[in-house]
Amino acid sequence: MADYQAPLREMRFVLNEVFDAPALWASLPKVAENVDPDTADAILEEAGKITSAVLAPLNREGDEQGCKWTAAGVTSPEGFKEAYQTIVDGGWNGLGGNPEQGGMGMPKTLVSQFEEMLQGANMAFGLAPMLTAGACLALDAHGSDELKETYLPKLYSGVWSGAMDLTEPHAGTDLGIIRTKAEPNDDGSFAVTGTKIFITWGEHDMAENIVHLVLAKLPGAPKGPKGISMFLVPKFLVKDDGSLGDRNPVTCGSIEKKMGIKGSATCVMNYDAARGWLVGEENKGLNAMFTMMNYERLGVGVQGLGAAEASLQSAREYAKDRIQSRAPTGAQQPEKAADPILVHPDVRRMLLTMKGYVEGGRAFSTYVAQWLDIAKYADDSEQERRIHAEGMVSLLTPVAKAFLTDRGLDVCIIGQQVLGGHGFIREWGQEQLVRDCRITQIYEGTNGIQALDLMGRKVVGSQGKLYELFAQDVATFIEENSDEQSLRPYLKLLAAALERLSDVTEHVINQALETPDAVGAASVDYLDLFGLTALAYMWARIVKAAAVKAEGDTSGFYTGKLKTARFYYDRLLPKTVSLAEGIRSGSESMMALTAEEF
Amino acid sequence: MADYQAPLREMRFVLNEVFDAPALWASLPKVAENVDPDTADAILEEAGKITSAVLAPLNREGDEQGCKWTAAGVTSPEGFKEAYQTIVDGGWNGLGGNPEQGGMGMPKTLVSQFEEMLQGANMAFGLAPMLTAGACLALDAHGSDELKETYLPKLYSGVWSGAMDLTEPHAGTDLGIIRTKAEPNDDGSFAVTGTKIFITWGEHDMAENIVHLVLAKLPGAPKGPKGISMFLVPKFLVKDDGSLGDRNPVTCGSIEKKMGIKGSATCVMNYDAARGWLVGEENKGLNAMFTMMNYERLGVGVQGLGAAEASLQSAREYAKDRIQSRAPTGAQQPEKAADPILVHPDVRRMLLTMKGYVEGGRAFSTYVAQWLDIAKYADDSEQERRIHAEGMVSLLTPVAKAFLTDRGLDVCIIGQQVLGGHGFIREWGQEQLVRDCRITQIYEGTNGIQALDLMGRKVVGSQGKLYELFAQDVATFIEENSDEQSLRPYLKLLAAALERLSDVTEHVINQALETPDAVGAASVDYLDLFGLTALAYMWARIVKAAAVKAEGDTSGFYTGKLKTARFYYDRLLPKTVSLAEGIRSGSESMMALTAEEF
Repeated sequence: MADYQAPLREMRFVLNEVFDAPALWASLPKVAENVDPDTADAILEEAGKITSAVLAPLNREGDEQGCKWTAAGVTSPEGFKEAYQTIVDGGWNGLGGNPEQGGMGMPKTLVSQFEEMLQGANMAFGLAPMLTAGACLALDAHGSDELKETYLPKLYSGVWSGAMDLTEPHAGTDLGIIRTKAEPNDDGSFAVTGTKIFITWGEHDMAENIVHLVLAKLPGAPKGPKGISMFLVPKFLVKDDGSLGDRNPVTCGSIEKKMGIKGSATCVMNYDAARGWLVGEENKGLNAMFTMMNYERLGVGVQGLGAAEASLQSAREYAKDRIQSRAPTGAQQPEKAADPILVHPDVRRMLLTMKGYVEGGRAFSTYVAQWLDIAKYADDSEQERRIHAEGMVSLLTPVAKAFLTDRGLDVCIIGQQVLGGHGFIREWGQEQLVRDCRITQIYEGTNGIQALDLMGRKVVGSQGKLYELFAQDVATFIEENSDEQSLRPYLKLLAAALERLSDVTEHVINQALETPDAVGAASVDYLDLFGLTALAYMWARIVKAAAVKAEGDTSGFYTGKLKTARFYYDRLLPKTVSLAEGIRSGSESMMALTAEEF
Repeated sequence: MADYQAPLREMRFVLNEVFDAPALWASLPKVAENVDPDTADAILEEAGKITSAVLAPLNREGDEQGCKWTAAGVTSPEGFKEAYQTIVDGGWNGLGGNPEQGGMGMPKTLVSQFEEMLQGANMAFGLAPMLTAGACLALDAHGSDELKETYLPKLYSGVWSGAMDLTEPHAGTDLGIIRTKAEPNDDGSFAVTGTKIFITWGEHDMAENIVHLVLAKLPGAPKGPKGISMFLVPKFLVKDDGSLGDRNPVTCGSIEKKMGIKGSATCVMNYDAARGWLVGEENKGLNAMFTMMNYERLGVGVQGLGAAEASLQSAREYAKDRIQSRAPTGAQQPEKAADPILVHPDVRRMLLTMKGYVEGGRAFSTYVAQWLDIAKYADDSEQERRIHAEGMVSLLTPVAKAFLTDRGLDVCIIGQQVLGGHGFIREWGQEQLVRDCRITQIYEGTNGIQALDLMGRKVVGSQGKLYELFAQDVATFIEENSDEQSLRPYLKLLAAALERLSDVTEHVINQALETPDAVGAASVDYLDLFGLTALAYMWARIVKAAAVKAEGDTSGFYTGKLKTARFYYDRLLPKTVSLAEGIRSGSESMMALTAEEF
């Protein structure tokens, strides 16, 4: 199969030409002090090398070997430990981290490109740095100075890794009913006791220590989500001099057999009065966890994107190589026994669908990352800019997580289909991408939960105000570019799609006044409708950036973008019409059935 | 997890109440002599027992163990051999077979219910009887009397199994370029030499002999598809007295590692001057193979349906059991820590989508089976009836194969999503259903090829005449039931959907006059549009059958059907609007790109 190659050309196009990220970075002093275009470009280049040359080659073996559990711990697949060391040596764990504690302070717009490469090259492996980065975010935002100084530098370097321990056997989506408890010790620490499941890289042999952020309940805590606190529980206790001390009784009871990401360990973690320290305030653990959620959720969306890019690369190469049958319009390579399957309209439809979602999706994830950067780094003097960006982040993050992973799976399935029978067997790698990508729709809040977050908390919850931020951004683009020749075929369609989305938004806000079921009945289809419309906006921005370079483009890069945009508008955007119609039917047909009638 | 239970109640409803299969059987003397309603019911009952109690329990272990290859042969997973013997003892291999050679002569309308159970319970295992039945069909239709008498009784009994050897490493969809050759021996047999890949159950230890139907080229045969012949090549040569003789040099070189159906062996078969016998005429092997294609293709569609039903059963049970969060309208089970997730509109949306496709799909597969029965069994005196049915079969088979497997995978993915993280791990079985079901979109002609067959060969090829048979059937139903109270909410929508499909059909027929690419550009979306419309028709027929029993129905069975129909029309049928819009955009946006521009 084609080995994964980091799509640097595509990433540079999005960063520099579609969004002008260098200008964004220059506008944010806290970012500008850490990055300039040359640094960013060098980082991309190096990230491309490491992910393509070190991580991608381990992907299949990692899947075949899986992790091995014994009572003594978990052994990662061959080569993972060395690869992890390469990541540590390069400082990649701290790429987006707080410079005060040893992080590199790079903006999310750049970091998310690295994340895409990491996840596209080897998702099972990539989960380790991803979870460490997530734990760092929560710790940096909520930990005491002492905790931060003790743990962050080691986590940013990657010498220690991080894990997030939320789920319990009976409590997944509904964290309010967790049972893990934390009882105060005399020295200010807590004794944490309970069982957590589905803990990614909760135990392994790649790092010297593992730092768990654990949700648990204090004695007498209120019932439900407002009675949950967050604790830091290290695998090895840390001595005052920073060296490792006793083994803490937090142990891995078993690892799951699962559909994909088999190279990673998904652990049952048992806490037996393990020593832990409170992170943030008592009973505000869920809030603290949600701090990092927007970053993590975008990161999971980018996992879907990374898998989809890997699938596209392999399907494209196969379609150009594999000869089978003749073009409908007559033989294209009469000297050969058959034509490459790329001549067939339906194979082109498949590849263009993949490109439409992957390239549009990359623009969208970068667009969301841009708002994350502004929300995090805007100066205090720019409060309005920051609040606006926070609103955008809040609205768009669930879309990025769910839409990019839903389309990520679709793309991987299509990529597999391009290869026919060869897509179903191991050898070509496509089937692994499907199995790996599937988890991204489930964890970090299922996509159904993302849709409820978008439709309920964000759209209906703000009575449409958050939605208006996005709608205004699109409307402004349409208005400002009404004279743009290259955009002429698209702006009217984009405006119609926006109007459709706005109408449906208003409709559901009104329906929700009548029945609380309206939100859940609309949510998943609404998120899809939103994502498709957002990608239409992205494709318009891509067209604008590509059109100026298309004339005389002999590489096909820019003209290919223009033609893929046309396909997106012709074939993918129309799905919004049906989604809108379905949503308007309301909740009645779902709620009418008794349990027996299912 | 919930163990698979054959959905006998659903099958009886479709057979007896929606379609009145007993009346159909009575109208076909060749069927009526073999089956009456009581016999059929007893067969369903017994099939339900065997598939639920014998095959389903082996499904997960089969997946985990897989088949084992050595140079001596292939060992099937533990328990498969014994289960196969149970199938042999019950005579299930010959259920639909020719009674003159020991088959039971049961109609497809009944056999396809058995096939659904078989595949829903254990798809990897189910492939063995399925391929045997396929080989029997081809042999029965094209083999010489001698071949038939020698092989058919043993295949119908299942003492020997069948395999179909078509694909080669460089030739999948495009069989015209195969290289396997067959050279005449002096005794009228042929020496077959070449390599075949992806041969399902091409080698195993469950049957005493394996009968391969192999496509190969005779010396001097014309190039392309018109130079292919079909040969019967047994693993063990058969002596004149019917006992087994020498081992024929047809050997399994290796088996594939693959995404799913791991309990089955997918073999590379090496032919080294293996002795074979011509089946049918020289150079007409593809024709002979296509004889059974309509049966096999419906059978693969039914595999998708079977997996989907299994997924629905498990998701439904989980949704009723799993408690998590509260209903949007307030606690439903305040005495418990949370409500069953079935209270949530989005979980209901998922289950109803599954039901809409599974129950509608079962009606559709039975509808197609009905035409297969008429086409095969109508008396010579009823030529018109037979020709009409042949047209229907020809039109509808690719839809059944592709639509039922595409929706089959969708349903399995949704079922997995209902279980959240528990759907991703092995334990609950949902992830295996996704992996197993995935192959059904690929083999027996990829779904892209099915769509080309429908749009190109059938619809455009007949200038719409075959399409009109279906359209007329729907239109007649609408007309005949215009006074039916229960159908009032649906007939107008069904008529609109039919009109949409008819308009698009005409549009593509016209486009195809301008460019041959029009067919491939429309095909996959057209098949989807066709399938969605056909299922709307099925749901209308289900409503008609259920409405008469719904009053006073305390089981929820009939009222559940009425409410699911409403959901189908509200939420699933609207997809046709977008599909039609996409198709109308034509082939230009696909064909515009050069190879580099991808």
